[in-house]
Amino acid sequence: MAKDKKLVEAITSRDEDFAQWYTDVVREAKLCDYSGVKGCINYLPNGYAIWEKIQENLDRRFKETGVENVYLPLLIPESLLQKEKDHIEGFAPEVAWVTHGGQEKLTERMCIRPTSEVMFCDIWSRTVQSYRDLPKVWNQWCSVMRWEKSTRPFLRGREFLWQEGHTIHATPEEAEARTLTMLNVYRDFYEEELAIPLVVGRKTDSEKFAGARDTYTIEALMHDGQALQSATSHFFGEKFADAFDIKFTDKNNELSSVYETSWGLATRTIGAIIMVHGDDDGLILPPRIAPVQTRVIPVAQHKDGVLDKANELLNGLKEAGFRAKIDDSDKSPGWKFSEQEMLGIPTRIEMGPKDIEKGQVVIVRRDTREKISVPIDAVTDKFAEILEDIQKNLFDKAKKFLDDHTDTAVTLDEMNEKIQAKRGFIKAMWCGEASCEDMVKDQTGGVTSRCISEVQEQLSDVCVCCGEKAKYMVYWGKSY
Amino acid sequence: MAKDKKLVEAITSRDEDFAQWYTDVVREAKLCDYSGVKGCINYLPNGYAIWEKIQENLDRRFKETGVENVYLPLLIPESLLQKEKDHIEGFAPEVAWVTHGGQEKLTERMCIRPTSEVMFCDIWSRTVQSYRDLPKVWNQWCSVMRWEKSTRPFLRGREFLWQEGHTIHATPEEAEARTLTMLNVYRDFYEEELAIPLVVGRKTDSEKFAGARDTYTIEALMHDGQALQSATSHFFGEKFADAFDIKFTDKNNELSSVYETSWGLATRTIGAIIMVHGDDDGLILPPRIAPVQTRVIPVAQHKDGVLDKANELLNGLKEAGFRAKIDDSDKSPGWKFSEQEMLGIPTRIEMGPKDIEKGQVVIVRRDTREKISVPIDAVTDKFAEILEDIQKNLFDKAKKFLDDHTDTAVTLDEMNEKIQAKRGFIKAMWCGEASCEDMVKDQTGGVTSRCISEVQEQLSDVCVCCGEKAKYMVYWGKSY
Repeated sequence: MAKDKKLVEAITSRDEDFAQWYTDVVREAKLCDYSGVKGCINYLPNGYAIWEKIQENLDRRFKETGVENVYLPLLIPESLLQKEKDHIEGFAPEVAWVTHGGQEKLTERMCIRPTSEVMFCDIWSRTVQSYRDLPKVWNQWCSVMRWEKSTRPFLRGREFLWQEGHTIHATPEEAEARTLTMLNVYRDFYEEELAIPLVVGRKTDSEKFAGARDTYTIEALMHDGQALQSATSHFFGEKFADAFDIKFTDKNNELSSVYETSWGLATRTIGAIIMVHGDDDGLILPPRIAPVQTRVIPVAQHKDGVLDKANELLNGLKEAGFRAKIDDSDKSPGWKFSEQEMLGIPTRIEMGPKDIEKGQVVIVRRDTREKISVPIDAVTDKFAEILEDIQKNLFDKAKKFLDDHTDTAVTLDEMNEKIQAKRGFIKAMWCGEASCEDMVKDQTGGVTSRCISEVQEQLSDVCVCCGEKAKYMVYWGKSY
Repeated sequence: MAKDKKLVEAITSRDEDFAQWYTDVVREAKLCDYSGVKGCINYLPNGYAIWEKIQENLDRRFKETGVENVYLPLLIPESLLQKEKDHIEGFAPEVAWVTHGGQEKLTERMCIRPTSEVMFCDIWSRTVQSYRDLPKVWNQWCSVMRWEKSTRPFLRGREFLWQEGHTIHATPEEAEARTLTMLNVYRDFYEEELAIPLVVGRKTDSEKFAGARDTYTIEALMHDGQALQSATSHFFGEKFADAFDIKFTDKNNELSSVYETSWGLATRTIGAIIMVHGDDDGLILPPRIAPVQTRVIPVAQHKDGVLDKANELLNGLKEAGFRAKIDDSDKSPGWKFSEQEMLGIPTRIEMGPKDIEKGQVVIVRRDTREKISVPIDAVTDKFAEILEDIQKNLFDKAKKFLDDHTDTAVTLDEMNEKIQAKRGFIKAMWCGEASCEDMVKDQTGGVTSRCISEVQEQLSDVCVCCGEKAKYMVYWGKSY
């Protein structure tokens, strides 16, 4: 059955114009659309359903490590935001200010949360007294607002959805361990559920979060060779605790500071899924995160018994725990096939009169287009296998792409040449000076340090930029 | 084992000072606390966990009726809010205004959503074209802001959490049916999950939602005899559609208006649970909605084998699908018992050396304080039974209270006398005129019409107030 040309042509080729391809996929898969408010998107059912799956899975992983959910106010009084110097410097230029409530001008203006470190510190400064009150391991699912100038659906927006975890601990060791625990939760989630391989490490001082002592990051590589910072986990030491005077009485009855962490993952994750797995026919969703794992598509559905059999199949799949839907609309099968592909549903199951005669169905994989004939009474077992295989294949393909687009350089010229020839990650040594990061950025048209790799290799003894003694191997790249 | 006096005394008696009792329960059960932002609360883990259970259950019920979740922007441009006249009149006095983004003054100010009818209309006016695009049955879980003057935790706040469903349909019949479907979802949820009996009906014109043609409501009776409007479902007719010019081409190729509904339930539901079921020892959570259904409390836990046995029991309960925790802290058993009661956990399971010897545990019900000895190997079956029985008992008790506090009146004097003597609902006839509602309110110290009952009785032929011909039987009462 031929695909519907009109539908397929709605999407620009990925290698022709990646930015346009992205916009087309988002639109045609009905993930979101622009709202009447500049820089803010409407999350449509197909897009929001992905976020719900992300929430469900990540929230379970959080709770397994002892996280409790809370919800703190949307508005932050200006005086509170100003308590930690580095933090306010980082965020003040990009917050939205509420100045009036009803008909009255407020005595103090308040901003819509861009992130909530100060709100968590505020409550803890009033309620934490003894070591018995520690640790606090809290998280909230909410929206935040940052007044960005240029925005792109899911990747950068004035309002976006995320989770922000905030914790306080009695010792720096425990806080650092929590920072790394959450980094690993994000890593496992990305690799196991989203089939997205990563580069993992610590941010340099110029790239870390406003107010953090250390920022850890997971970085994924998009199909255009640009990196996407996908989730971060911060260790603050006692900086915020000191600014907010959060003290507790320890077991020896002495007053002591707490140590704080925070960590977050946002709806830009949906952008990562699109740009890592999508192809010229549209979205491809990894089966574990796909809100719908298959569409049953009856062929010649007006013929006697076809629709009944298709619904029987659908119910069997649902009962076996799969997320399945049926497309019994009056559109042509060709149109239905194209739409299922464009929406990124990982499989479709075709079932026509001939299939029914033979006691079989045809499962078509979205990733490879392979058509697999399966006896009807073996569908659920075989289907589970196919989904797992798609999940694995998507990861393997993305891993191969990541490896193929990761190179090394020992001089700035070499870095420049390689990144112009093939965009991706460049591993190179660094002396630890911000001035060298600035120079790399200047001379390469915007390449930045993505992270100090958690796995260190001694590629050279000197910095890729200044030639002084190298301290770290860093992943470099252009980024979103 | 004696309860801990100090803990119990932290809560004011319910009949002595109901408002103080409420504040005490909220504080001692650690459901929320006041934030540094006036009128906004911090939802603490114990309180937010109840909201998560509410969301989980209600969301499943929504989806069974075909609801899809979305997320629309937090900010509403002023011009958009002004498009529907009645709506803006209702909400303009109580919204928070954003006037600055970053360092810049906005060309048009925007308010933080007090409710999102206009945002849904805005997207539909741009995207709905044909009957094929209908119906839209959307919902969002979010926070909203209304600049209230006086606030109380969960019941009335400047920011609160809720869900708001919005739908459009091709015919008024279909839209009205959706309004009633959602009313019934709320009713079933309240009665089945929260064990809260209701009075159900339609709001009078003076009490309905700003811009609605009909507002349906579920009203619950709190222990102090005041009503709590617990969820509402609105039918808008074509009012919003006309204001926003949402038109579609029908099957006959003619341009037609859509018909809209909206419906919402908020975190005030947590307030309802507290005020319907709580007692002088604190919160009582119905088992189906309780985040934790039992606490295993080992007695003499330092003795050999007690802690192991208690953990074995805990794991058995968890594996059987119950939400169970253990309290193995170094506090005294008496303290632990009091705390479990105050937190509203529906049961505790006591297990000491003597119980282990006898091969039994003691399950203690929060609602009746009954102690039930159960053989260890029969715990999971018996426990399920006990939870169901608690659920039923809570509903029956609340239903009896509702019936005992519902009376009838045929004159205003009678209404006044009865409501002064025993606060609750008064059923009385009404002519349909707003002036009579005003007079009732004036002459009774604030009694308002709660709803035109869905079940009508002919209590009298004339209006309770003016003596003119009666049209409806109305539930009247004081309300939160």
